[in-house]
Amino acid sequence: MKKANKKINAALIIIGNEILSGRTQDVNVMNLSTWLNDLGVKAEEVRIIPDKEIAIVHTVNFLRKRFKYVFTTGGIGPTHDDITSKSIAKAFKLKYGKHKKAYKLLEDYYGSKNFSVGRKKMAMMPVEASLILNPSSGAPGFIVDNVYCLPGVPSILKSMLGGLRDKIKGGKKILTKTVNVRTIESEIAKPLENVQLKFKRVDIGSYPFFRLGKIGVSIVIRSSNKKKIDACYKEIVSFLKNKKVKIIGGE
Amino acid sequence: MKKANKKINAALIIIGNEILSGRTQDVNVMNLSTWLNDLGVKAEEVRIIPDKEIAIVHTVNFLRKRFKYVFTTGGIGPTHDDITSKSIAKAFKLKYGKHKKAYKLLEDYYGSKNFSVGRKKMAMMPVEASLILNPSSGAPGFIVDNVYCLPGVPSILKSMLGGLRDKIKGGKKILTKTVNVRTIESEIAKPLENVQLKFKRVDIGSYPFFRLGKIGVSIVIRSSNKKKIDACYKEIVSFLKNKKVKIIGGE
Repeated sequence: MKKANKKINAALIIIGNEILSGRTQDVNVMNLSTWLNDLGVKAEEVRIIPDKEIAIVHTVNFLRKRFKYVFTTGGIGPTHDDITSKSIAKAFKLKYGKHKKAYKLLEDYYGSKNFSVGRKKMAMMPVEASLILNPSSGAPGFIVDNVYCLPGVPSILKSMLGGLRDKIKGGKKILTKTVNVRTIESEIAKPLENVQLKFKRVDIGSYPFFRLGKIGVSIVIRSSNKKKIDACYKEIVSFLKNKKVKIIGGE
Repeated sequence: MKKANKKINAALIIIGNEILSGRTQDVNVMNLSTWLNDLGVKAEEVRIIPDKEIAIVHTVNFLRKRFKYVFTTGGIGPTHDDITSKSIAKAFKLKYGKHKKAYKLLEDYYGSKNFSVGRKKMAMMPVEASLILNPSSGAPGFIVDNVYCLPGVPSILKSMLGGLRDKIKGGKKILTKTVNVRTIESEIAKPLENVQLKFKRVDIGSYPFFRLGKIGVSIVIRSSNKKKIDACYKEIVSFLKNKKVKIIGGE
């Protein structure tokens, strides 16, 4: 993949055997992508990889040089299969050890009596990392350079995004307009392609759906330029009317 | 990532801007991984990439040399954003054109009167590809070498897996045993690590959950060797009893 340093984009790395085995349905990709979208950051690649040091080190080092932001999810808990923090230290060749601020934060959260060996492990990370605070369960995430390490549990991850917002410099917000139509894709393929050819810097996607036993197609227009979206939308609606395709909604 | 040609493993490539933008929740990873698991094939990496030729060509060529099986989903429909078939031809340097058998199949399905230009596009693919039949909507998927191209619509994809079963030579089925316990991860981290160190070729995963307002942990044991799973399970249950951790279920 070509270098994309100047683009305001992101890659997501979902770390977890439970996702790869099909045991757990990932929802972090959707949550993170949507959140990034709102900040004007486009997620351009996702990799789901196992809890293996070599895979994490290799993937992080490959992607962090090619994307403005890299987010990892999973593997920062207290058990033996949580190896993200150590692997990130290795990827960056940084010292892995007790992070003073994280340690203090966890000790305050649990109280020194209940601050067990297992819990102390969650303060182990690249010692120079910046922390991402965790309002739901104490254990922080962390940032090294352009790599943002978040937990795998979706509700906890989501609770941490608020505190992260100021740390992400987004670009123009990516806007979307959707037209839902009662037709099949092949009926609109040609005129839709013509509109796409005319508006080269707008993304037009076509997605068939089945809802309540009826088929339809969602046409999704995406761009950071509202005028272009509107112009594109107008042309699409115009050819739909000419072809007598029924518009059944949109947003 | 190191070469893994002799392993019976798979990589999945999810092609689609709608997944990357967060508009659509992917479920194909879970469906495919679970299905592969049953056949004794371990999904070891997933990449979600945009509908861009360069991304598809690069990703397919990278992964097909490193994994026994590669599955792609998405981008084989009739619209302008469906560029998977053409990109696969390019990745393999194969002729892209009208696939005779696919053409015949689609023509029979739609009837020659209704066989529009848009529908004809779905017969365009690497001309020498083997077909994957589609019982739900006519349009076939295809196979080139070790790369299996499937549609993105989950219900259609699932309907095509039955016909694919015989084409995948799996290994030993990967078995799973789960113990759900009423505790927090840090309480069981150390003894669980000890069991993992003893059973090096068994995967032990630990996954916190929140259900009906209560927290718990799922301990998941995975291996193709039933005896090892059972022995491992016994040791886990034994330390749980010693620590008076309540077992609340499992499968």
